[in-house]
Parts: sequence; structure tokens; C-alpha cells
Amino acid sequence: MPTNQFLEDQRVARLATVDDRGRPHIVPIVFVYADGAIYTPIDLKPKATTPERLRRVRNILSNPQVQVLVDHYDEDWQRLGYVQLRGTAEIIERGVEYDQAIRLLEGKYQQYQKLPLEGRPVIKISVERTVSWGQGL
Amino acid sequence: MPTNQFLEDQRVARLATVDDRGRPHIVPIVFVYADGAIYTPIDLKPKATTPERLRRVRNILSNPQVQVLVDHYDEDWQRLGYVQLRGTAEIIERGVEYDQAIRLLEGKYQQYQKLPLEGRPVIKISVERTVSWGQGL
Repeated sequence: MPTNQFLEDQRVARLATVDDRGRPHIVPIVFVYADGAIYTPIDLKPKATTPERLRRVRNILSNPQVQVLVDHYDEDWQRLGYVQLRGTAEIIERGVEYDQAIRLLEGKYQQYQKLPLEGRPVIKISVERTVSWGQGL
Repeated sequence: MPTNQFLEDQRVARLATVDDRGRPHIVPIVFVYADGAIYTPIDLKPKATTPERLRRVRNILSNPQVQVLVDHYDEDWQRLGYVQLRGTAEIIERGVEYDQAIRLLEGKYQQYQKLPLEGRPVIKISVERTVSWGQGL
């Protein structure tokens, strides 16, 4: 499967950031991949927000170097595969690119029909280097 | 589900390390959790080894602060959950603890019946802080 198709098909990825003490932090993310960038929304609903969820934002503001991992696990280890995307992260909150990201996220995840994204900040990761591993990736 | 049971049941996790330029690096890992530590083997088979696979080791040697994420994705977002385990990593290659880790890994993953682990280095992560998020975790 070509890498782009693999990226578009996966429903969840993991985002790693680094804090100001040099410690890594990982969270699962929903995401879309378009035009060389990964977009993932920030969940700001008060009830669902924990310090851990906001830590990714604090980390990005102090160190925008991030990595996203999109992988596939299978009990048949011949079928394991992953794509690592290294890039620079920023927070976007409005504009044409923001509107497109929201549309793509709402198109990919039906769950957003009940939880509209409009108004929530989005993390944009401009991908600078991609490493793929595994059969067909 | 109690956190320990969740950790033991998951088949794959993600390990984040940080390189000497402050950039995060993530890989999917197989693992066992025992006595407050995560153990994951290093695959040293020449054909399967890529620089990316060894990078985790280089990073740990220069900065042993790591994080492991064990998460569950479900299309019912009420069922999302994750556990973040922050800790200090080291490489172990022999001894009672090493032997126990190999036994546990071979017990959890039948795949190792054809790929015996004996002799391969293991990354041990001594867990210092655990954050759980999601229903029942």
C-alpha cells in the first residue's frame, strides 16, 4: 500500500513533543494528512481537558520539533508497518488553511457531527522528513 | 478496567525518546509490564535493522528520560483510553532480571517461538510516574 494511502486510512496516530526539561511526551491523536502536513484538533471542552492534554501545546510553544507515528500492528509480524513523520508544529486558529483542516477532520471522523470542531485550535505539523518501515510502505 | 490489567492486555505500545538535538522519536514496541517496569526487546536481526530502529538506543544512552504510551482507540469515543508511563530507560543484557524479562516476553508473544529472544538486549524502563485517562482507567 502506498504510504499516502496508509496515512489517510489510519484512524489514530501518536504525537510526540518534548518539554522544556528534555522529556518526551506522547498522546494519541486523531488527524488528517493533506498537502504535506498533519492536522490534529485540540480538544478544549472543559470536562475533557486535563493538564496532560494541554501539555502538548505548552511543549510545542517552547520546542516546535515534533514527530508523528502512524503504525499498524498485526499478530502476523510480517504485516507490521509504520510511518514516522518529523516536522515543525504550530497552532492555527483561523484562515483558509484552518477552515480546510476543520472540513477534512469533520469529513474523516463522523464523531464530529455531534462535537463540531469550529472554533477549536488545530495543531499543524509541516512534515520535513518521512521514514517508512514495513512491507509495502 | 484497572490500569495494570489494561497494560498487560495491550499487544503494542509506543516508546518516545529524545535525541541530542532535542527532537522526539517514536517507535511502536512490543512489551511486558512487571514490577513497576516496562521491558521491550531490541531487534538486532541484520535484515530487519534500520538506523531508525537503533536510534532509540542512541537516544537512551544520551538521554534516558523516556515515555511509553499504551492506548486504546475505539470508534465509540466514550471508550477511548490511554496510560502514559514516564521513566528512566537503560539497556540490560544479562542477569536474573534480564532472564525474567525474556521469559515474560516469550510468554506474551507466541511469535517468539520462531524468533527466540535469548541474547538480544532489552530496554528496561523504570516507571516513575503514570497518568491514566479515559473511562475506567
